[in-house]
Amino acid sequence: MFSERIERLMGSLIREILAAAQRPEVISFAGGLPQSSCLPKLDFSDVPQHLAQYGTTEGEPELREAIARQAQAMGIPCSADQVLVLTGSQQAIDLASKLFIDPGTPLVTEGPTYLAALQSFNLFGAKITAVAQRDGRLPPADLAAALDSVKPRLTYLIPSFQNPSGACYTEANRRELAEVLDAASTVVFEDDPYRALSYDGEAPAPLVSHLKKASWIYAGSFSKTLAPGLREGFLIATPDLYPLLVKLKQSTDLHSNRPGQWFIAKALNSPDYPVHLQRLRDTYRVGRDAMQAALEKHFADLADWQVPHGGLFFWLTLKQAQDTRVLLKVALEQENVAFMPGEPFYPDPQQGIGHLRLNFSHAAPERIDEGIARLAALIRQRQRA
Amino acid sequence: MFSERIERLMGSLIREILAAAQRPEVISFAGGLPQSSCLPKLDFSDVPQHLAQYGTTEGEPELREAIARQAQAMGIPCSADQVLVLTGSQQAIDLASKLFIDPGTPLVTEGPTYLAALQSFNLFGAKITAVAQRDGRLPPADLAAALDSVKPRLTYLIPSFQNPSGACYTEANRRELAEVLDAASTVVFEDDPYRALSYDGEAPAPLVSHLKKASWIYAGSFSKTLAPGLREGFLIATPDLYPLLVKLKQSTDLHSNRPGQWFIAKALNSPDYPVHLQRLRDTYRVGRDAMQAALEKHFADLADWQVPHGGLFFWLTLKQAQDTRVLLKVALEQENVAFMPGEPFYPDPQQGIGHLRLNFSHAAPERIDEGIARLAALIRQRQRA
Repeated sequence: MFSERIERLMGSLIREILAAAQRPEVISFAGGLPQSSCLPKLDFSDVPQHLAQYGTTEGEPELREAIARQAQAMGIPCSADQVLVLTGSQQAIDLASKLFIDPGTPLVTEGPTYLAALQSFNLFGAKITAVAQRDGRLPPADLAAALDSVKPRLTYLIPSFQNPSGACYTEANRRELAEVLDAASTVVFEDDPYRALSYDGEAPAPLVSHLKKASWIYAGSFSKTLAPGLREGFLIATPDLYPLLVKLKQSTDLHSNRPGQWFIAKALNSPDYPVHLQRLRDTYRVGRDAMQAALEKHFADLADWQVPHGGLFFWLTLKQAQDTRVLLKVALEQENVAFMPGEPFYPDPQQGIGHLRLNFSHAAPERIDEGIARLAALIRQRQRA
Repeated sequence: MFSERIERLMGSLIREILAAAQRPEVISFAGGLPQSSCLPKLDFSDVPQHLAQYGTTEGEPELREAIARQAQAMGIPCSADQVLVLTGSQQAIDLASKLFIDPGTPLVTEGPTYLAALQSFNLFGAKITAVAQRDGRLPPADLAAALDSVKPRLTYLIPSFQNPSGACYTEANRRELAEVLDAASTVVFEDDPYRALSYDGEAPAPLVSHLKKASWIYAGSFSKTLAPGLREGFLIATPDLYPLLVKLKQSTDLHSNRPGQWFIAKALNSPDYPVHLQRLRDTYRVGRDAMQAALEKHFADLADWQVPHGGLFFWLTLKQAQDTRVLLKVALEQENVAFMPGEPFYPDPQQGIGHLRLNFSHAAPERIDEGIARLAALIRQRQRA
């Protein structure tokens, strides 16, 4: 009755967890929600009336230009003609899946990698090979070996403050990876939603800025810096890919919400935007530091982790591995604490046994210690059992 | 380098035409744009701040309830739990394509049918069989024969003021078709964006309201009645399909723009909404009548057509068939008139030689006669050549 891909339509653990974690008594480290106090005021008082009419698939000119200027400032060689405004950056993943993936198409990602990208790639039937991150970098030789062995059509990477690992590759690592990617015949998809959320200095220039030969898609989001409820994101693509992505977007939803595009362009062009970003960083840094302090206090003997220099997550590796999907169920039922199990962030969940992703942007800092303490006590109890 | 489906990614004639038709000297009957004077004022002054945050995939509760109430009033047995808010009703086509279509999957549509639906179904690899409309109805025996012969997973129909033909099936025809569909094992997709644009009395109840057994998706739009720039639409689905469509929507764009959903809910619940619809109908009826008068004057010897009782289009069948894709090119270059060629509205464009779709909602009524006169003169000239 259904298409073959529906067999691969995974139930989303995120959905079920977010549903469960909405009880007010739950301390949730599960989602990736921005703190509501950091969201800009939804001021649409000057929205131009002509935005009620149909717009172009590519997006509003002012927004495309603002995005291109930011990208150029980061070191990406591009023009506004290469910018496609999206209905959230999730749509970049849907469009790339449509553009590249047939059942059995080889793809390379990091291990771990973004859960919702894996879900979409899987839905379209990709055969995914994950290259393991080591010590906050992606070993170029391991990537080269994977590219050589599976010959992926697409290589999907999140080099800056990755969800879930928090890793941010050094400039040197990015250059090495770009060289490896240029030498292979794979398209590069750099997903970069967390770049602006940096707490200890800027992230290095995007990986795609170092590419000399490979075709690429660079995707960005306004859900982490402005307002996720507007569902506005973007991609920038090399000219060989761009017209195909526009046609795919047209057949998906014609174009993105226009008042939302106007709101984002206004925010990006506002002289207050750097102040807003600084306030966001200062707020989330407090959460990051509160969680680091709580982890040092309660988890030192239970897990290993790196302090993330940006993004929204700590990534814990338990010293005594256990299936954290089971742990989550117990944590919610017995301790009213939610977190994100690590397994679904791997193409093969069995690769990911014993990791936890902990969000520090949504729970109030004063509840972080309490939640981490409860979680540590539960893990300790289960280790003794 | 690309997925196999990209070979089927058709260039969109609509895009190229709309681009060409944007010169101010062109009288355009090509698109399906609402008249800008009929669009509601984009008043977001009371938009709740919490809509800046992430929302649920299903959509805002107030909007889902308003949609369910309207659907119930039309005779569709449903609850708000079956309503999924979409990023434009085009997304219903994308999600249904994902849910049902593998390369080679049989589908049945009307001939002609909505161009952008054909594009999406084709992209996913469907094998489409079109059942020809006759005298403004769909012959049940012809539908039954097609269902029996191709055994489609999905049957896609636009029973009310169809784009492009303008046909609106009678109550009796709908009952007969529902019986035929119930007897086959096919899912029914009723696309119903034009229902509210009725100029000579209401359309009969949706076809899905007569189904007793078949699973169905009913899709609706706010782009024809409120503001297309917001990209808000919806589907209602039987409970066996609904959870799968939600998961597919989540993997496509997480959820739809929230301030836009709030705006639509506010408009639907406003006591002024019936007045707004009446004004829309009164305005478009003037355009419809102006075009009918112009066609009688200039096209009586050139084409056959039915007066549409709703929707946005006249559908002309030339008495001397010619490829209207070629005609369009000449009409734009020599006469500064744009229309939509009929061929792309058929799964096999060769089936559709000699039809024109003419929109009457966008050109000012006083320019309609001028444009129709120029077009008639050109056709006459080409017939003599």
